[in-house]
Amino acid sequence: MNDLSTRLHAFDIATRLEPVGDGRYVGATSPTYWNMAGPFGGITAALMLRAVLDHPQRRGRPAALTVNFCGAVAEGEFEIAVRLVRDGRSTQHWQVEMTQGERGVATTASVVTGAARETWSHEAQAAPVVPPPAEVASMDLTGRTGWTRAYDMRFVEGQPAWVGRLPQIRPARSVAWVRDAPERPLDYVSLAALSDSFFIKILQVRGDLPPVATVSLSTYFLADEAEVAAQGSRHLLGVCDARAFRHGFNDQSGELWSADGQLLAVTSQVVWWKE
Amino acid sequence: MNDLSTRLHAFDIATRLEPVGDGRYVGATSPTYWNMAGPFGGITAALMLRAVLDHPQRRGRPAALTVNFCGAVAEGEFEIAVRLVRDGRSTQHWQVEMTQGERGVATTASVVTGAARETWSHEAQAAPVVPPPAEVASMDLTGRTGWTRAYDMRFVEGQPAWVGRLPQIRPARSVAWVRDAPERPLDYVSLAALSDSFFIKILQVRGDLPPVATVSLSTYFLADEAEVAAQGSRHLLGVCDARAFRHGFNDQSGELWSADGQLLAVTSQVVWWKE
Repeated sequence: MNDLSTRLHAFDIATRLEPVGDGRYVGATSPTYWNMAGPFGGITAALMLRAVLDHPQRRGRPAALTVNFCGAVAEGEFEIAVRLVRDGRSTQHWQVEMTQGERGVATTASVVTGAARETWSHEAQAAPVVPPPAEVASMDLTGRTGWTRAYDMRFVEGQPAWVGRLPQIRPARSVAWVRDAPERPLDYVSLAALSDSFFIKILQVRGDLPPVATVSLSTYFLADEAEVAAQGSRHLLGVCDARAFRHGFNDQSGELWSADGQLLAVTSQVVWWKE
Repeated sequence: MNDLSTRLHAFDIATRLEPVGDGRYVGATSPTYWNMAGPFGGITAALMLRAVLDHPQRRGRPAALTVNFCGAVAEGEFEIAVRLVRDGRSTQHWQVEMTQGERGVATTASVVTGAARETWSHEAQAAPVVPPPAEVASMDLTGRTGWTRAYDMRFVEGQPAWVGRLPQIRPARSVAWVRDAPERPLDYVSLAALSDSFFIKILQVRGDLPPVATVSLSTYFLADEAEVAAQGSRHLLGVCDARAFRHGFNDQSGELWSADGQLLAVTSQVVWWKE
């Protein structure tokens, strides 16, 4: 780690990409955001988005991000290739592919960016009413997997117990304040990572953690640049739920609310598990 | 239309693909599923999925489908190219691209297929309790856009009024029985189309219909082959909601429940509109 690195936030080190020309970027996995058998999915999502945002032809802010986790990302270097599929007046459509040499494609993503616009607006739903972060205890993450310790999580509802298979199924809904640890001002790239920061739902409802992996993750960004910046480094309120666990897959849907009660992003994913 | 076509359901004609080798397929747009300025997004989603399911290397059933609507699809022929990105033991990852000659890429999609498996299962949420389809009136679709008349829709809640801008904002939630018209036994391809059969939410909440287009649509299939087949041609219960309309975009999330109250698929999309 060089002098510059020691002054950078671990998130910025983990999502640093070096352009090598022609829409291609090189990066490396980070120990801070390591999960059990590979990098935290959220950091991979953040990298796929970062590559598009760094592209010289990119206009506007992200509106949609879908990440497909095709195979395990190995520790070390990777390359991300970005392709502008369609350049429209109001939206740009991007395809992104992460590869690791002979290991082939580890991750694919699609990103839609949209021009900044002021329009009619309407909030059809409001943030849940919960105690402020200062009144909720931080979850003790001692001994937990790397990436979880890169976040401060304060559960209002649905904190997993990590006690193994429970005698009774618990509800799937969770509500928690969350922010980077150490704190860092929010941007779209960290919002993309946060959209995968909800704990695996099977752990919450069943109590144990089988072999499990997110297969596909989609995040829609409803906030514009100013609204993202207004959040600063305060806690976001993450709300997450699941509807069905069947045939080795479950759905998961989440919301990320600003400290001021504004919906910044919504996210959904499908999760694979072994048994 | 030849003799064979007259005996086929319009949906099967609209989603018919001719393999031209090397993972490429040729098809044509259908007047039955035409929308205002191009094909109904659901029929495009169905075509992208059909191309993967028709691919000789495909194993397992669909688990996830994301469709990015990059640009308008013109009336006439199109080509769909399918690429197997990663062939894993439990999942296959596919990339799909629809092009129309010099017009370039109209649509991209990613599909994840998963091996058929029996596992632990848990329904964290139940279908809403509503009157059966026989007790709910079909929506009068006389004079409406082509594709809507290819469905029988029976609204329990949230039917759009088509009366122009309303004096007061209405709730975004809708609950409706829906099936193909004429009826047709459900399969994954028609389930993909149904996942985009919810009316544009801005029409429901605001009353008018600005220039509007789905940007990205993701559907997760929770049902296995047997559960899809068990539905037959009965009505599905479609539940749909939206959370925020801001900066020319809104989110939308939906559920498709079987006639027996089983969650067959969940879907989410981000919608672009002009003002």
